[in-house]
Amino acid sequence: MQFQISKDFVEKIQLLVEEHNNDELLLHLEELHHADIAEILDELSLDEATYIIKLLDSDKTAEVLMEIDEDDREKVLQNLNAQEIADEIEEMDTDDAADIIAELDRDIQQEVINNITDRDHAKDIIELLRYDEDSAGGLMAKELIKVNENWSVTGCMEEMRSQGENVTRVHSIYVVDNKGKLKGRLSLKDLITAPKDAHIADVYITKVDYVNVHTTGEEVARIMQKYDLEAIPVVDELGRLVGRVTIDDIVDFIREEAEKDYQMAAGISEDVQADDGLIQLTRARLPWLILGLLGGLGAVYVMQGFDEALKDYQVLFFFTPLIAAMAGNVGVQSSAIIVQGLANDSLKESLFSRLLKEVSLGLINGIALGLLVMVFGFITALPQLVSITVAVSILSVILVAALIGTFVPIILHKRGIDPAIATGPFITTSNDIFGIFLFFYISKLILGF
Amino acid sequence: MQFQISKDFVEKIQLLVEEHNNDELLLHLEELHHADIAEILDELSLDEATYIIKLLDSDKTAEVLMEIDEDDREKVLQNLNAQEIADEIEEMDTDDAADIIAELDRDIQQEVINNITDRDHAKDIIELLRYDEDSAGGLMAKELIKVNENWSVTGCMEEMRSQGENVTRVHSIYVVDNKGKLKGRLSLKDLITAPKDAHIADVYITKVDYVNVHTTGEEVARIMQKYDLEAIPVVDELGRLVGRVTIDDIVDFIREEAEKDYQMAAGISEDVQADDGLIQLTRARLPWLILGLLGGLGAVYVMQGFDEALKDYQVLFFFTPLIAAMAGNVGVQSSAIIVQGLANDSLKESLFSRLLKEVSLGLINGIALGLLVMVFGFITALPQLVSITVAVSILSVILVAALIGTFVPIILHKRGIDPAIATGPFITTSNDIFGIFLFFYISKLILGF
Repeated sequence: MQFQISKDFVEKIQLLVEEHNNDELLLHLEELHHADIAEILDELSLDEATYIIKLLDSDKTAEVLMEIDEDDREKVLQNLNAQEIADEIEEMDTDDAADIIAELDRDIQQEVINNITDRDHAKDIIELLRYDEDSAGGLMAKELIKVNENWSVTGCMEEMRSQGENVTRVHSIYVVDNKGKLKGRLSLKDLITAPKDAHIADVYITKVDYVNVHTTGEEVARIMQKYDLEAIPVVDELGRLVGRVTIDDIVDFIREEAEKDYQMAAGISEDVQADDGLIQLTRARLPWLILGLLGGLGAVYVMQGFDEALKDYQVLFFFTPLIAAMAGNVGVQSSAIIVQGLANDSLKESLFSRLLKEVSLGLINGIALGLLVMVFGFITALPQLVSITVAVSILSVILVAALIGTFVPIILHKRGIDPAIATGPFITTSNDIFGIFLFFYISKLILGF
Repeated sequence: MQFQISKDFVEKIQLLVEEHNNDELLLHLEELHHADIAEILDELSLDEATYIIKLLDSDKTAEVLMEIDEDDREKVLQNLNAQEIADEIEEMDTDDAADIIAELDRDIQQEVINNITDRDHAKDIIELLRYDEDSAGGLMAKELIKVNENWSVTGCMEEMRSQGENVTRVHSIYVVDNKGKLKGRLSLKDLITAPKDAHIADVYITKVDYVNVHTTGEEVARIMQKYDLEAIPVVDELGRLVGRVTIDDIVDFIREEAEKDYQMAAGISEDVQADDGLIQLTRARLPWLILGLLGGLGAVYVMQGFDEALKDYQVLFFFTPLIAAMAGNVGVQSSAIIVQGLANDSLKESLFSRLLKEVSLGLINGIALGLLVMVFGFITALPQLVSITVAVSILSVILVAALIGTFVPIILHKRGIDPAIATGPFITTSNDIFGIFLFFYISKLILGF
């Protein structure tokens, strides 16, 4: 039953656009879900996409615009004038409208806002623009259903019908007092089953989760996940109900955050996708590679400092990639677990017990791997002292790498820096150099070159 | 307004458990949200947690059990007998109940099911146990509100009140025909605003997204995200409505999948958390380190094969960690982008254009980094031919690593294997060896040792 986008269908649409065959285009597109139309537009050229946006009704295209890729949207909007953009904005929920306007250039923003006919809508949007993008205020929409605690159930049903027009999904009905302060909530089910002559004050639920406009997006996501909420009301500094955040925005938020952390761990900055352009991809990947290169050159420098070893223990140099790999892998493992623990808010142990655990883990892993190296040394007839040197180095490198991997993200987090930056190339590079230095230093101590 | 768990509070609860002060315990815990109680239980010892589970009402503890850590839950359930578990199951939604029963040992499963008093509930649970855990059938709950298309609006309101008791959140009312086939949906709002004497057939919406019991969890998540759905009905092979999947389960599913991919990229298998035990953490981390170790030993072997270079070009060996780091970083970058593209279903380019793009990217990055190495060589007075060798090797290694990183996950995906396994240690290790081999091979060609 799902619509499946096909190459044939896209080509047909392209042909119809070329022929300016509007009737046929409308016939094909009008029945589609806006998310499907967005998927088609992502396949079209900018001109073709703009043509279709201008052709379709703005109540449809407003939703389509919210679904297409951010870069594409920016370009499409550049092809529309302020009046045309305002028409789209008029049809959007306030949260989407504010997001779109925030993406526009400063000079056109004011013009678009002036062109919005519904002044209340414009006022709501301006209010939302004040908040930080990643706060509850930035994520919330103004659309919701609120009733006064002093109303009767019948009056409330009436009011609900009129307010309901602007609200796609009701979730909860929020109850406020005369000053607009949030007092509680009511489900549609409760309202239907309540006696008709009752007052809201008699039937509403006083227990209601809410967040403040300044609550961070992470915190909103955490609360909504923990309590399985589908919407959460947002209050201002005075406790007045000013909006609500719905789960669909939080789903997008969670996915984007997870993607960002994942890319960071893989050494990709900026939010890039596989089908982005070469320049964007290079900008996201090259800086991390340069970091890795500098680390590698640092390792060259470290090894030059130990070049006396080349005379008698050349074989040690064969082991440097092994040492670097161990240091890098352990560092990433440790930091990834911490970063994820911080993101989930599941890190409850004290710093000391963390330390104890990482040291124990490092000892277990280090001894196991050290023994494997001894076996390898025995089989390949390495001088025994060299085997011991490599094994001891692996153990030490693992311990140090685990501690760096654990504490760097914790320290960054405490200082308010995103700890995810500490995973990936950052940790591998620093651990590479440090590990190689430690390796040769230990070798020098044991082998005495 | 959110409950904040504190050390003092946990200690107070522990003291009350020790004193068997049930009245006080109930006083403290009864008013709390089940997710908060779960958070407290996670801090307690197994015996203390079991004590509280036995003390509280099963309508509360049923929900608490769903929220606590899976390992803890398993242990708590081992302290309950079949009748006590059945009491908990009785209070759960069918999807949660089926998940819990699936976690039990086979021999106790049957006994628990036999102890469930509500036979319809038991039947529903048994039906759900048939489906794969990660399919729509395994994710869905049987609780939903369905009405027959031939009913009147008034009759429907009546029916809804009685069915509604078992359903926490209504979302949509589903419309079926006499054979139970899904025909459409109806919102509570539509029902309230419809004329009382109308028939459901006149007012329902025929356009309804649905999935089949065998649809994969990934696909369900994709559809619900794409169309911003909060619930989706599930039909069987004959198109009959058999359950629905709600967004809260999908939110958990998305988060778990993202975490799995992230851990895989960081070289951590199994689903571990920072506060898991040493054995579990070792089991999740050591295998990947052994893989890295074997890779490192492989590199030793490769370099031994090129040991003639040691006579005249010892400096080359200082560059092996650099080459390995470049190969590893590029490989992870490329594979992470592909894995994410596959997960998002946003990979629309053809294989050939992917190839072209990766080669172009590799050329840009490789030339940039190669030039940097030339500059480094100039400053540190490296023999010019050595600088050229390293630069050319970096370019080649980046190209090869990018291709491996791109195509390994694509091939794995085509063969039905989770491509995420190709990120992290797997790709870094193979790229390390390959990169080092390529480096010395190119060195031999250029420098002729």
